[in-house]
Amino acid sequence: MQKPSIPKGTRDFSPEEMAKRNYIFNTIRDVYHLYGFQQIETPAMENLSTLMGKYGEEGDKLLYKILNSGNCFSGISKEELEEMDPVKFAAKACEKGLRYDLTVPFARYVVQHRNEISFPFKRYQIQPVWRADRPQKGRYREFYQCDGDVVGSDSLINEVELIQIMDEVFHRFGIRVCIKMNNRKILAGIAETLGASEMIVDITVAIDKLDKIGLDNVNEELRTKGLSEEAIQKLQPVIMLSGSNHEKIDSLKQILAHSEIGLKGINELEFILNRVDKFAMRSQLELDLTLARGLNYYTGAIFEVKALDVQIGSITGGGRYDNLTGVFGMDGVSGVGISFGADRIFDVLNQLELYPKDALQTTQLLFINFGEKEEAYLLPIVAQVRAAGIRTELYPESAKVKKQMGYADAKKIPFVAIVGETEMNEGKITLKNMITGEQKPVTLEELTAQLA
Amino acid sequence: MQKPSIPKGTRDFSPEEMAKRNYIFNTIRDVYHLYGFQQIETPAMENLSTLMGKYGEEGDKLLYKILNSGNCFSGISKEELEEMDPVKFAAKACEKGLRYDLTVPFARYVVQHRNEISFPFKRYQIQPVWRADRPQKGRYREFYQCDGDVVGSDSLINEVELIQIMDEVFHRFGIRVCIKMNNRKILAGIAETLGASEMIVDITVAIDKLDKIGLDNVNEELRTKGLSEEAIQKLQPVIMLSGSNHEKIDSLKQILAHSEIGLKGINELEFILNRVDKFAMRSQLELDLTLARGLNYYTGAIFEVKALDVQIGSITGGGRYDNLTGVFGMDGVSGVGISFGADRIFDVLNQLELYPKDALQTTQLLFINFGEKEEAYLLPIVAQVRAAGIRTELYPESAKVKKQMGYADAKKIPFVAIVGETEMNEGKITLKNMITGEQKPVTLEELTAQLA
Repeated sequence: MQKPSIPKGTRDFSPEEMAKRNYIFNTIRDVYHLYGFQQIETPAMENLSTLMGKYGEEGDKLLYKILNSGNCFSGISKEELEEMDPVKFAAKACEKGLRYDLTVPFARYVVQHRNEISFPFKRYQIQPVWRADRPQKGRYREFYQCDGDVVGSDSLINEVELIQIMDEVFHRFGIRVCIKMNNRKILAGIAETLGASEMIVDITVAIDKLDKIGLDNVNEELRTKGLSEEAIQKLQPVIMLSGSNHEKIDSLKQILAHSEIGLKGINELEFILNRVDKFAMRSQLELDLTLARGLNYYTGAIFEVKALDVQIGSITGGGRYDNLTGVFGMDGVSGVGISFGADRIFDVLNQLELYPKDALQTTQLLFINFGEKEEAYLLPIVAQVRAAGIRTELYPESAKVKKQMGYADAKKIPFVAIVGETEMNEGKITLKNMITGEQKPVTLEELTAQLA
Repeated sequence: MQKPSIPKGTRDFSPEEMAKRNYIFNTIRDVYHLYGFQQIETPAMENLSTLMGKYGEEGDKLLYKILNSGNCFSGISKEELEEMDPVKFAAKACEKGLRYDLTVPFARYVVQHRNEISFPFKRYQIQPVWRADRPQKGRYREFYQCDGDVVGSDSLINEVELIQIMDEVFHRFGIRVCIKMNNRKILAGIAETLGASEMIVDITVAIDKLDKIGLDNVNEELRTKGLSEEAIQKLQPVIMLSGSNHEKIDSLKQILAHSEIGLKGINELEFILNRVDKFAMRSQLELDLTLARGLNYYTGAIFEVKALDVQIGSITGGGRYDNLTGVFGMDGVSGVGISFGADRIFDVLNQLELYPKDALQTTQLLFINFGEKEEAYLLPIVAQVRAAGIRTELYPESAKVKKQMGYADAKKIPFVAIVGETEMNEGKITLKNMITGEQKPVTLEELTAQLA
């Protein structure tokens, strides 16, 4: 018989991996709670009518579609079938699909439950999503997203709080980060000022390459894309923008002096920075004009978090969007959100070995099992240790002590309790520290006091 | 535009529902940890070759199958397609399906990771499963299971610990329960003693109806099913079995005196009861011969938990099985497990209103927002309150106070902080208790001391 396996791009999570993942999710969850965010969950399966057309043509192809149960051919004619057109077929034979992200289901949720929700709605959601992407290193077909959004409020205080949340989460993880910030309105203002509004993406992408390819090549690329010589000249101070955030803002104010939308973006940015300046931020916060994340989606602030001590893509991102729910017929719901990249955070914590020991330790104490008599003697004692809140196991069989010790080692159990004839007579427990190897007889009270 | 909806039989979970569900999952999780169980997770999608044939013919039909991405027709000839046979088609066009329970994926996990696992393996798993069942009240197409199993150990200490786990979980919930216990070997012994081994299920089902239809009708049903008159007479003491668990066992010892398997079952039961007697159990524990749960699957102990104060089916169940992984080519892995029914526990806790207030409360304190000046003044104060671990919100806009108070009410926030001109001058915060209506000025220190 073939050894069973799981689908490409999916993963099993072992106890140790789960302990790490729970540490990540719980940390994020705790911080969301501290800021008044509430959790929701949506079903894994959504109607395909909810999902299709929301992620572009490419996205539609990456949706996992579920074959209608019962007769999947009902409603399909022989002629239609003979075309063997997978897209047309799926449109008839599949009503449901697996969610592709948490944003579209959230938009659907807001519209469907609009009358039960008290706005502004601060929600977070930690659930897996599925994409029929080609699997490769670090890219999976099933992975978790950890989204937090505030919808139904235009206030920039929400942006400020999301920055605080990112700062607090990475502080708790012990990961040094730079939170990069941009504003879509500033980018629009720059493009407008150059008389090239439609080239906003090209311009941003080109600027982003400055470090890699140098100024001359950036300008050359802009020329190739069709930006006029005059516009390229005008753009030079933007490309070379440097200094502190406030110095950058001062320069931008001059460059964008005649762009209404550009100035609005600068105002937003300044509001946020002025507020954030009041906190003892642990993270760097940097205005970065090359941040173009989700440019056709975000309408105001754009965020991205980079780890300082590990070479890896952004580990969190987000921004403000104007019309979350318009696609479902409910206009005027603006919002701002962030999404923590759990898989990359997992990798960073692994590389930097930042997991706290407590988070990885499962069982605290293993009682060695010497046989039926000792076992019967131990059962009430084990119960008392557990009643003290100590995560405890009694090895279920009187196997060889070496095997039982091996079990403790494999499970990284830090303490082992040995109770044989002598200990039973003396009413003691020999407590062995598995890390130092040290062992000494203690009373039950001393044991619980030490481990609780 | 049509209001968006979700697939029949699936659910969204609102913040309040999520708080309740998290309370349930966290309670179960904490108790599993206390006993040294470790969490694993498996992917939502499994290869259909892993799932098919494991749940009977009916089960195969209830599997959600995922249409192969790319061209689902590749490898299918026109002739095959023209048959329009949904089962044959799915076998070619779908490689993956959604998991139907947690047991088969767990068996697959154990086989696949056998070399990484240190046995006995105490694992728990809390994840959703999907079944294309007809939805009805209390039956969903997506629902969570909370399974705990110990595999790779024959010791009955595992059964004892699972009983303790059930007792502890329902004690923590405040749900009064009866844990019913049976043993497949005793049922086999009874059927063997009657000379009707093949009628084990019929006999159990008939006895189960005693309370509902009375002794005469039970006997009549057995007669109809073909049980001999002699066997029916022999069965009478079993049907009328009563008294304490130990009295029942004494009677059974006589009845099953000549059945080796029956006596083995009684021995197992007695071992478990004798051990459990040593603990201060909060739940009733009752030997119930009519318990026939998963009879063609379990080989030893069978468990079922009934709530005493609510009319509802069993809220937890489980038992011992002999050969979990044989179907994947790895023999000799026996185990014992239980599964908490989260949805029914949710209903019971709702009906009895047993949720602790703390579990449902999200934000503890809302700061009213009176405008830009007050907002700027408050930001560092809010940060200090949060640093004290108090879940705090600052309303993001200077909306009408009534609206902000309404937000606090809707979110069940117990305290509101009011800081206007006067408070700013005096360095105080007016703290309002939203339940009593009482309000008084306090210092920041007093506030954090009161709420932390």
